[in-house]
Amino acid sequence: MTRRLHFNLFIHDTGHHEASWRLPDAHPLAHLDIDYVERLARIAESAKFDSLFLADSPVLWGDPGRRPSGSLEPTVLLTALARATSRIGLIATASTSYNDPFNLARRFASLDHVSGGRAGWNIVTTAGDDAARNFGLDAQPAHADRYERAAEFVEVSKKLWDSWDDDAVVADKDRGVHAEADRVHVINHEGTYFRVRGPLNVPRSPQGYPLLVQAGSSEDGRDFAARYAEAVFTAQPTLAEGQVFYADVKRRAAEAGRDPDTVKILPGIVPVLGETEAQARELEAELDRLIVPKYAVEQLSKQLGVPAERLALDDQLPADLPSEDDIEGMKSRYTLIVELARRERLTVRQLIGRLGGGRGHRTFAGTPVQVADTIQQWFEQGAADGFNIMPAVLPSGLESFVERVLPVLRARGLFRTEYEGSTLREHYGLARPASQYALVTAQ
Amino acid sequence: MTRRLHFNLFIHDTGHHEASWRLPDAHPLAHLDIDYVERLARIAESAKFDSLFLADSPVLWGDPGRRPSGSLEPTVLLTALARATSRIGLIATASTSYNDPFNLARRFASLDHVSGGRAGWNIVTTAGDDAARNFGLDAQPAHADRYERAAEFVEVSKKLWDSWDDDAVVADKDRGVHAEADRVHVINHEGTYFRVRGPLNVPRSPQGYPLLVQAGSSEDGRDFAARYAEAVFTAQPTLAEGQVFYADVKRRAAEAGRDPDTVKILPGIVPVLGETEAQARELEAELDRLIVPKYAVEQLSKQLGVPAERLALDDQLPADLPSEDDIEGMKSRYTLIVELARRERLTVRQLIGRLGGGRGHRTFAGTPVQVADTIQQWFEQGAADGFNIMPAVLPSGLESFVERVLPVLRARGLFRTEYEGSTLREHYGLARPASQYALVTAQ
Repeated sequence: MTRRLHFNLFIHDTGHHEASWRLPDAHPLAHLDIDYVERLARIAESAKFDSLFLADSPVLWGDPGRRPSGSLEPTVLLTALARATSRIGLIATASTSYNDPFNLARRFASLDHVSGGRAGWNIVTTAGDDAARNFGLDAQPAHADRYERAAEFVEVSKKLWDSWDDDAVVADKDRGVHAEADRVHVINHEGTYFRVRGPLNVPRSPQGYPLLVQAGSSEDGRDFAARYAEAVFTAQPTLAEGQVFYADVKRRAAEAGRDPDTVKILPGIVPVLGETEAQARELEAELDRLIVPKYAVEQLSKQLGVPAERLALDDQLPADLPSEDDIEGMKSRYTLIVELARRERLTVRQLIGRLGGGRGHRTFAGTPVQVADTIQQWFEQGAADGFNIMPAVLPSGLESFVERVLPVLRARGLFRTEYEGSTLREHYGLARPASQYALVTAQ
Repeated sequence: MTRRLHFNLFIHDTGHHEASWRLPDAHPLAHLDIDYVERLARIAESAKFDSLFLADSPVLWGDPGRRPSGSLEPTVLLTALARATSRIGLIATASTSYNDPFNLARRFASLDHVSGGRAGWNIVTTAGDDAARNFGLDAQPAHADRYERAAEFVEVSKKLWDSWDDDAVVADKDRGVHAEADRVHVINHEGTYFRVRGPLNVPRSPQGYPLLVQAGSSEDGRDFAARYAEAVFTAQPTLAEGQVFYADVKRRAAEAGRDPDTVKILPGIVPVLGETEAQARELEAELDRLIVPKYAVEQLSKQLGVPAERLALDDQLPADLPSEDDIEGMKSRYTLIVELARRERLTVRQLIGRLGGGRGHRTFAGTPVQVADTIQQWFEQGAADGFNIMPAVLPSGLESFVERVLPVLRARGLFRTEYEGSTLREHYGLARPASQYALVTAQ
């Protein structure tokens, strides 16, 4: 089969640009309006996107003045979207540091049932002390500990999802037996972080379990992705860096004993479209002018762990920043920001403009053909299996991508015109996982 | 205003009778079929029920052969129902023993946003060692400890729900200020069970917070209800017992400084309807014949903490049962079962027939007028503000209640013909709670 692009829509209220909510047409309460989010989901589904995705963290992040803050919990929100759509995949972010495996595994199994096999889980470890303080801790656990817990969390979850054999429910009215008890398994997990008896209290779901997605690009994050992820979201600012990352994760997956084709790499892209390149750049500049410097500097100060007063708007970043090794938060995001600033010798004002658009993801202002060319180049030159589409402005940026970029890619035979499968895993060309317990029984 | 009945529909897959799934028309996978549950919700809404409700426990309870087992997580399921309905209240059960306040408060706030102010939370402490073993414990915490934790859990949740003032979000595009930071409050809760910084990462929801519901009838449970509950579900087998319970909870609420009218008492009723009383009794007998004794005895053995081999089908219960004080599980359910068996000198076989229908709730087989008479009697003689309707068979038992009992009650002026309000709290005639932080600011 011809290799085809995969597209995920990253939904972020009025758009990924932090000032998008200030545009005259922007819906000021988009983040709380389920009708609005459903409209985005329907657009993406009619355009045959593989999936849509919601980021999340169990904390109020930054100053609530800066942009729409606080958001509906993703598994709740996606359940509503599951009923408004019928084909598109639904990927929710959830933290392994601040959840219990039993509860979270059950919610994802439920979402997979309600959506008919369209659930995905973006597995995050949740950086930041403020999040930790919402859960009885004084500070976040160390980066490596968070990833160790995440790995055990996924192992427990898979056991729970597998705890009902696919054929456990027989609903035999004559015998009066609803499920065969010997096809429902206690898991008795005993590990470093968790002790869980099981079985799960939901029968096995259409996909077996949700598509496993991962978005951390640190060393720990890449190793985790290589072991568990079926799709990887990543921020790669240049083609060359994207190629290195792509090759590295595929190599690590092979080393972990997996077929590298079963790990789909999806860099983020923030398309800003115009009829001409100049028009696109003008829209980008208009958005950057709407950024409130005070909020953006506070945000940058948090991300870098540097006091705001040391970030003068018209100077470059201070020379004495810590190294990634000393960062316990979002390591790869930290390095990406610092390298971007150093490489292009940006002032703080220029840097917040660049980050305001896509937070370090590849922002691309241009014509539809220019955007399509870039996508094709990354796809064909070993940097991407598809893209995480992050419109700077929603819904207009999604609409113009769908109406103007996708037809170019379809004309080149690079993107589907119809869904071929019905589950999220089928959209990404991945097989339904077998149950670890049923396999044991069959041997 | 005339005092009117309140009705809640307790949804339980194919019906509350444990053998209902074996009837020829029963949908064998009802518990996993969101279309089926939506159909029930639409029937209840078109009949102007105040609310619908889902029980829950984070454990697979009993033998999965016995009846449809495992169920979709309630906040997920109710979000789907929120989009299929527009007026009826949506009450989900969730455990205070096996959740974190931050995550749970956020899910309920999200459900309240998505549903436009129709969320309710049935607060349970979750009995049973098997549930505890899904969360790293060897055995359940003591009954009193579970209730102490529940009280603190509710206090933390209320602080989180109140952490955004109602007017915090201003979305001022000109100034570039989305929410006023001084109207969003860190809660800094430090208690016995929880330390939570806050604020919540969801703005205050339409109802301020979900309707608080409680269903435990032990001493601890009644005290908890008196302090926090706005609606109480309870199992009361006779009018006299219902009257005592009703007076007791209202008295405790007054002692806790609350207006007793703001605590609505809703006993469960399992209506089994026939054109004649004989017809109703025949349907009841048919259901009881479908009970598989092996499963029912195992269930009873668990509930009483007595080995199954000591429960001979044609004997009465053993004389040397423990007292309620020694029970750490569902105390009031335990006492209810034992008293029912002793009072009516039931054999184990007779007892499992009685429990198979409504698990100790008032089962009532009769004509529509007989059922309406009983409801009116309880309502007017100080035993109920409304009822938790638990059809033995679904959907048919709900349909016949709606088509044949409700018209009788409406003709007597006892039940609404149209919704007057739009939120769940409005249906129950309760005021929207003010925020504790906004009150402080205003003084």
